Amino acid sequence: MTSRRHRVVVVGGGFGGINVTHALARADVDVTIVDRTNHHLFQPLLYQVAAGILPEGLIAPALRNVIRKQANARTLLADVKDLDVHGRMVSAVAPDGRKLALPYDTLVVAGGATDAYFGHEEWAEFAPGMKTLEDARHLRSHILSAFEMAELANDPAERAAYLTFVVVGAGPTGVELVGQLAELAHQVLPREYRSVATTEAKILLLEGAPAVLGAFHPKLQRYTQRRLEKMGVEVRLNTMAIAMDHDSITVQHPGGEERIPARTKIWAAGVRASPLAGMLAAATGAETDRGGRVVVMPDCSLPGYPEVFAVGDMISLDQLPGVAQPAIQEGKYVGKLIRARLEGGTQAKPFRYFNKGSMATIGHLSAVTESFGMRFTGMIGYTMWGSVHVLYLVGWGNRLAAIYTWARALTFTHNRAHRVITFEQARYEVTEHAATDSPGI
Amino acid sequence: MTSRRHRVVVVGGGFGGINVTHALARADVDVTIVDRTNHHLFQPLLYQVAAGILPEGLIAPALRNVIRKQANARTLLADVKDLDVHGRMVSAVAPDGRKLALPYDTLVVAGGATDAYFGHEEWAEFAPGMKTLEDARHLRSHILSAFEMAELANDPAERAAYLTFVVVGAGPTGVELVGQLAELAHQVLPREYRSVATTEAKILLLEGAPAVLGAFHPKLQRYTQRRLEKMGVEVRLNTMAIAMDHDSITVQHPGGEERIPARTKIWAAGVRASPLAGMLAAATGAETDRGGRVVVMPDCSLPGYPEVFAVGDMISLDQLPGVAQPAIQEGKYVGKLIRARLEGGTQAKPFRYFNKGSMATIGHLSAVTESFGMRFTGMIGYTMWGSVHVLYLVGWGNRLAAIYTWARALTFTHNRAHRVITFEQARYEVTEHAATDSPGI
Repeated sequence: MTSRRHRVVVVGGGFGGINVTHALARADVDVTIVDRTNHHLFQPLLYQVAAGILPEGLIAPALRNVIRKQANARTLLADVKDLDVHGRMVSAVAPDGRKLALPYDTLVVAGGATDAYFGHEEWAEFAPGMKTLEDARHLRSHILSAFEMAELANDPAERAAYLTFVVVGAGPTGVELVGQLAELAHQVLPREYRSVATTEAKILLLEGAPAVLGAFHPKLQRYTQRRLEKMGVEVRLNTMAIAMDHDSITVQHPGGEERIPARTKIWAAGVRASPLAGMLAAATGAETDRGGRVVVMPDCSLPGYPEVFAVGDMISLDQLPGVAQPAIQEGKYVGKLIRARLEGGTQAKPFRYFNKGSMATIGHLSAVTESFGMRFTGMIGYTMWGSVHVLYLVGWGNRLAAIYTWARALTFTHNRAHRVITFEQARYEVTEHAATDSPGI
Repeated sequence: MTSRRHRVVVVGGGFGGINVTHALARADVDVTIVDRTNHHLFQPLLYQVAAGILPEGLIAPALRNVIRKQANARTLLADVKDLDVHGRMVSAVAPDGRKLALPYDTLVVAGGATDAYFGHEEWAEFAPGMKTLEDARHLRSHILSAFEMAELANDPAERAAYLTFVVVGAGPTGVELVGQLAELAHQVLPREYRSVATTEAKILLLEGAPAVLGAFHPKLQRYTQRRLEKMGVEVRLNTMAIAMDHDSITVQHPGGEERIPARTKIWAAGVRASPLAGMLAAATGAETDRGGRVVVMPDCSLPGYPEVFAVGDMISLDQLPGVAQPAIQEGKYVGKLIRARLEGGTQAKPFRYFNKGSMATIGHLSAVTESFGMRFTGMIGYTMWGSVHVLYLVGWGNRLAAIYTWARALTFTHNRAHRVITFEQARYEVTEHAATDSPGI
């Protein structure tokens, strides 16, 4: 009987999955990454795809390409449907309907997170979030179409609704999105429109808490708010969404309720764990927290299943933020742990998060960063933000392309080069319209 | 009563529409371009999007951006539904359902072409063509998914069907596509696949005529065929498709009939005019030819309607080829004619096509070009092809980006950086499968 190598199945090719895999490069294992798309998505820059700055390929290298040099790793394009932790088997379905059975010796589930609407799942239709490239394509198309439709509308109220953009949630994603919307409305689009003044766009940032960027130092919170307001963003704190439809959003703030006509609403207010977390919890009997995250042991394994791990946004561990760093560090940690175990190492130390800091871009050449007690804003913050994000992109080809694209978008022409709306995408929700418009010249 | 300016409505923002508009930059008119997408598509490079080389934004600048400096021009995002040549009114519907009425004094219809299946319209489902960015996204996803599915298939026959790519039609588009497929299978993908040898891919180019690149000199035809065969492409001349389904294509050649199992079929065998040509013919009483093209007067106007013009792939005039140059030159000609008329000029000379030559890339740094009786092949041909195509891209930003992307794709890494398959796109046609596969390591 031939001995076979230890099989590690990794579900998900995001930050967690990729880092587990890389950490196993020199281990005596066979790694299989299963993902339902063919790419590793660099989510921190997804908003730049939604804003038309970056082409999607730049932040979504093919998973096969990312692991091409790692001979003990492979990747399969399939959607995981079942985790059998007793039979040690992952069941998945490929895009052509083929059923796959993937036996494992060690399983790592890294399914990430999805948007959470806190009991208002029907809002997903009116206020889409931004987690996948499909989301970013849709948002880009929706935002740019809103300006296009404003150009066609003769009725001032209708036009105003098209020119009102509401972002719900003032975390880094929300801040970055309103920054981009402000730049589109004030710098990129004005010279391209003839009937409508895009500078009249109303860009609102709603936040339930009393400050933007909740996780940051109060100084940076105040800086960010001032800076956004200078860019023309209306920041509304202590304000919650309570209802919405295609045409409007209704909010509650200390002064009462208000219905805001707005054709574009974007959800950046919260996430919950991928459904894989629930699947894993059901299979292992582990608990989940309010965000649907599965509660893991201090070494990221599942209680009672030392050969099953979970990492990234779908786990509940030490209240870590839902950004790339915890997923990256947990992935590396679990990869090393698996290798150490196979090599007969001693009991692993629990996972410890090393906080490298936080950052968020605000807009044109401005960002806030805090790291090891130091805080930076403006151009210096932006340079730090840019350097870190370029370094974390996969491959020098993508890094150079990103630098070129940013230089082009931010400095010379103020253009946004990647803003395709295809015919199929150009489908705005149809609501009431006056009979026939003759857009005047 | 205030006098108003002469209104020119241009339907379609392709090569024809853009060049009419630019030629009217200094004319005393108001130009309105109506297009159902928001971009000007540089179709000659569309195959590079389908092949994962170029990001789509690079060949699809926003129409608004293209005409931003031309103060007398505007663009509207809407789908034209009716042409009333008596009431001089274009009716269109915007993506949000809004009905638009656009009165004109002069009308230019530049609707382009679409794929023609010569009475087998049901083949569109099995062998998609490539005319829009949506088509290119779909083709890219379909081609890359075929390799992905081959990696999952344990059954050799099934695997072979996934690894067989058939391009129907050996004009420039067909030649360029098989060249790209050969490069993907032989140079880009082999090191990324673990189970399947992508070099075993079978790439077939079917052509009903006795030579590839029908419009080119026999020397270039032979060179192209030799070169493709060296790259691993099977060129089958005098061969016609007679039937197809999701799994196969049946062809007829001098030796008889043959059913070829193939999951990927691509249509590059023929085009017909956009439905706008039929709409225009019906409205004006003009004739159409077999390809659905509307027959125009020697000055590109419609018989009996001197204020209505049509240009580009949708017109029947002097048997011009369906490439960019005739559309560009007709657009410029009509723009100048409109301006001259308004300035009280004399009767215009008929349109005369100035043939600058033809070119097609074959694959890695190789192309054939012929121009003014001179013919070039290989690296020299490629350099000429590259220079011309870079110059015709819109804007220096896109030109530099294209050069960088080509340098990256063709010389150093042989990578294809833009090959996203999203979860929604990863939907292969489901056919028969064995129960459950356990892809072996």
